[in-house]
Amino acid sequence: VKRNILLKLAYDGTAYCGWQRQEEGTPTVQQTVEEALERVVKHPVTVYGCSRTDSGVHAREFVLHFHTDCTIPCDRVPVAVNTYLPEDVVCFEAREMPDVFHARFDCAGKEYVYQILRSRYRDPMWHHRAYHYPYPLDLQAMREGAAHIRGKRDYAAFAAQGNPVHSTVRTVYGVEVQEEGELLRVYVRGDGFLYNMVRIIAGTLLLMGRGKLTVEELEAGLQAGDRTRMGPTVPPHGLYLNKVYYQMDGEKEG
Amino acid sequence: VKRNILLKLAYDGTAYCGWQRQEEGTPTVQQTVEEALERVVKHPVTVYGCSRTDSGVHAREFVLHFHTDCTIPCDRVPVAVNTYLPEDVVCFEAREMPDVFHARFDCAGKEYVYQILRSRYRDPMWHHRAYHYPYPLDLQAMREGAAHIRGKRDYAAFAAQGNPVHSTVRTVYGVEVQEEGELLRVYVRGDGFLYNMVRIIAGTLLLMGRGKLTVEELEAGLQAGDRTRMGPTVPPHGLYLNKVYYQMDGEKEG
Repeated sequence: VKRNILLKLAYDGTAYCGWQRQEEGTPTVQQTVEEALERVVKHPVTVYGCSRTDSGVHAREFVLHFHTDCTIPCDRVPVAVNTYLPEDVVCFEAREMPDVFHARFDCAGKEYVYQILRSRYRDPMWHHRAYHYPYPLDLQAMREGAAHIRGKRDYAAFAAQGNPVHSTVRTVYGVEVQEEGELLRVYVRGDGFLYNMVRIIAGTLLLMGRGKLTVEELEAGLQAGDRTRMGPTVPPHGLYLNKVYYQMDGEKEG
Repeated sequence: VKRNILLKLAYDGTAYCGWQRQEEGTPTVQQTVEEALERVVKHPVTVYGCSRTDSGVHAREFVLHFHTDCTIPCDRVPVAVNTYLPEDVVCFEAREMPDVFHARFDCAGKEYVYQILRSRYRDPMWHHRAYHYPYPLDLQAMREGAAHIRGKRDYAAFAAQGNPVHSTVRTVYGVEVQEEGELLRVYVRGDGFLYNMVRIIAGTLLLMGRGKLTVEELEAGLQAGDRTRMGPTVPPHGLYLNKVYYQMDGEKEG
């Protein structure tokens, strides 16, 4: 029986066409990580990620698992893999897991954070890392909207159109708006997310912050499952996968 | 008489071979800004910067001046120039100055900050923005060293070798070490700096933080003007030009 190893990564997604491996020549985080791992374990590797981040989206914590015969001790894996990873991807933890563990299917929930920069002019230190939004915002209205997006229900209104899925019911554990200087951070935690869901939630809260959508209209749009009554899908470079929850960690929320 | 206009810029220096214009084909911040300005004022422009940042060094505040016949109001200049600047350079202020003002010669002082990231593993969100230094540091020792680097004296020991200058006497207004989470920031303020001076000061304080150089050895090295007794020149990507002082601002310190 092969060993089943869990890795935690962080990456700057700017240079990648998302997580998932695509045709040769398209840079993806998955391929980058597989190639680095192959140099460590000396055999072909397929990694299974906890989710598929989009092009330009970042991760502060991304979990994957892979199988190997290699006998390298887990505590040496991060340094070994980092030797072969580029600067914009890092492995910061490795753990031996039970044979049945699957990074995606066993994932109990995730936290994303969407970063908005409210400075008058764009800031070169934040390009690719936060969405520049230099307009006045009513944070109270945004927080009321955030508090309203909660619980198990049909979130079809927050799903990108043209991406049919079996069910659009998800459980949102909570949405929070936090301010730190000129940065506004929208935290979204849930058991799973529809395509573009976090970016649509952030775009909708921005619309509410500008006084262009009320909580009543938000609720009506959610009930109707009407994507067109929500805010725009804000750009990917403000989005970070922040935390990944597994029941075995005792970390699951909600 | 042409107008004399001051601009304040911020930039991410990662993609540039420093501020100063070089031969065609070498990307520099100066050339990038001149080309953007030329599209606004519709004539060739030479800009005069407050200093020459090195390849990979960043600026949160960089001041320049240029002359023009163009009648565009100053309050419209930032938005107009930003239209033509790439994402990693921004203009956030423009001001009409007296004819005699010179961004470099009238500069009364500058503040640099050197950012050190102390996390165990490198952080993809800080690559190109902070120097990763995952070793234990005695901050008290660093602060004692910092407090010792102060006043008007010969700082030849902090100058890159092979860069002869008329005088190696400078006035340092103060050096401070500030901690914020895993980030350590070394602030250095002075009336002027020798080549690589701030990076050598930061490298010297790191050496002190590791217990490899005492305050007495620092002082002896300074008195001897001996570069070889100081710490290494730490990499450029941790360095930011943070503030530029002019007497007319009433901002000059020391």
